[in-house]
Amino acid sequence: MDRKFDLAVAQVGGIQPSEGRATAVQRLIRLLEQSHHKGASFVVFPELTLTTFFPRYWADDIAVMDQYFETEMPSAEVKPLFDRAAELRIGFYLGYAELTPDGQHFNTAILVDSMGGIVGKYRKIHLPGHADKLEDVPVQHLEKRYFEVGDLGFGVFEVDGVRFGICLCNDRRWPEVYRVLALQGADVVVLGYNTPIEVPGWQEEPHAKMETHLLSLRAGAYQNAVWVAAAGKSGSEDGCHMIGGSAIAAPSGEILAKARTEGDEVVMATVDLDYSEPYRQSVFDFDAHRRPEHYSLIVDRVGRGDPLPVDFA
Amino acid sequence: MDRKFDLAVAQVGGIQPSEGRATAVQRLIRLLEQSHHKGASFVVFPELTLTTFFPRYWADDIAVMDQYFETEMPSAEVKPLFDRAAELRIGFYLGYAELTPDGQHFNTAILVDSMGGIVGKYRKIHLPGHADKLEDVPVQHLEKRYFEVGDLGFGVFEVDGVRFGICLCNDRRWPEVYRVLALQGADVVVLGYNTPIEVPGWQEEPHAKMETHLLSLRAGAYQNAVWVAAAGKSGSEDGCHMIGGSAIAAPSGEILAKARTEGDEVVMATVDLDYSEPYRQSVFDFDAHRRPEHYSLIVDRVGRGDPLPVDFA
Repeated sequence: MDRKFDLAVAQVGGIQPSEGRATAVQRLIRLLEQSHHKGASFVVFPELTLTTFFPRYWADDIAVMDQYFETEMPSAEVKPLFDRAAELRIGFYLGYAELTPDGQHFNTAILVDSMGGIVGKYRKIHLPGHADKLEDVPVQHLEKRYFEVGDLGFGVFEVDGVRFGICLCNDRRWPEVYRVLALQGADVVVLGYNTPIEVPGWQEEPHAKMETHLLSLRAGAYQNAVWVAAAGKSGSEDGCHMIGGSAIAAPSGEILAKARTEGDEVVMATVDLDYSEPYRQSVFDFDAHRRPEHYSLIVDRVGRGDPLPVDFA
Repeated sequence: MDRKFDLAVAQVGGIQPSEGRATAVQRLIRLLEQSHHKGASFVVFPELTLTTFFPRYWADDIAVMDQYFETEMPSAEVKPLFDRAAELRIGFYLGYAELTPDGQHFNTAILVDSMGGIVGKYRKIHLPGHADKLEDVPVQHLEKRYFEVGDLGFGVFEVDGVRFGICLCNDRRWPEVYRVLALQGADVVVLGYNTPIEVPGWQEEPHAKMETHLLSLRAGAYQNAVWVAAAGKSGSEDGCHMIGGSAIAAPSGEILAKARTEGDEVVMATVDLDYSEPYRQSVFDFDAHRRPEHYSLIVDRVGRGDPLPVDFA
């Protein structure tokens, strides 16, 4: 890809439990073709794109959930997406549930280049929700039950000459993620998400849900002088409603493109990698301004604690 | 202060080079009294509040700039502000240039409790701008020339029973700052700023300047489940134009109060410390969700570097 290229975010409307992977993949191929017609050289698909968002369901026997996991990538059902993308010379990001040969379960995303090769992988680190069964709630959010914490760190990978940082869903709310990716030279941060409007226990007001999603993308882009592209699986799934708002944020902190609907929809922006440079050479010249000697609590503490003493007298 | 209290942000219009500290202090006292009448128990004043924003001026001899620095706090000229605040039982945050007995120069902020005692101090760590003289620019931004990097870290201090984290101006654009303060249990982050619309070299579009200011406050508040209150010295100073937008952001990421003008103006919000709690117990339950073992680059690297290898095959 050039220093300037057209990036597509492919939002995917709800995928029902009854919907098979083959059907889902056909929808993804249609979105891929739309992106190609609009001139895209890279497409971002959502998190857990191939099935319904199963962490909403409780299963006494975890093994029941293995039906939602992929044991190879691409599988026979997903291969048509890889083939079509390679034909069209488009790279893509895809989120799915990964079951490894040694039985580990991860919430995973991959980067595929325009030749169809898997050139990057991420396993989700910030797993939201809970591991235990909550009673008297309309829906569970069991990512901490069904997935292990990712073991690959936050990686940056070159895809067709552009450095992509990858993460997933809840990661986008943690400023550490964008920073660790930016410190590895990421130019574009891509992520998929599933964000239910209703979660167990206390929750933000519905109007705030979209705002905090966009706020997180915008702040990540601005404070790191990177582009951020986020694709949601949204709309209704098995009676549960997830936000839309798939979007692309520029290093200015502005949203340059955003989905209007909660269904299958492609939004596009022209990513100009040179637009990051003046930010990186002025306000966010990390070498000139960052002071890591004062950031150590970020790695030394997990949760909130007491103030450190300051001798200012 | 209770778990719920009224917080004032006192924006200060431009202070001209000819304006003495006594005049400036009279303006601050008026803003303090207005805040009191509106019910405030704490007031946030700007950065370098007592004089014009002198880092815009070049001086071959740095000592010429000592006229803008305070050698004691409160000085005789500033004491009326301390006295009036103690009379009204209001605490406050005040930014000023500090010259220490051993000759160090800092861009400093203090916290003063409702009895008039200095209970916290911060010396600015993220100094923006440059140290050398730039030619052919309309204005300099010489914080790196006139100030040393702060030596007190990012501190959190209890003021009348509430934990305040303090920082200054450019610090608000660095997510590390809010995080280090939140990890020390900050409930409210307070800061002053001077943000010139015109800076040397490349700059954001003017419309973006206000947006990135507010974006930084909002993201800091939301991602750390704290309140953020920012007071600017704004409007015209010696022909230079600084943004207004003094504001208070809630843990929801929303701006709850914002100055309308670029002059002396008080804006208020009722800070409810309990409103932070549900965020701290769900999406931003740091103990449950943070993964510092994956954040080490934040302290191990200063600037952007190459991607770390990831073995995902």
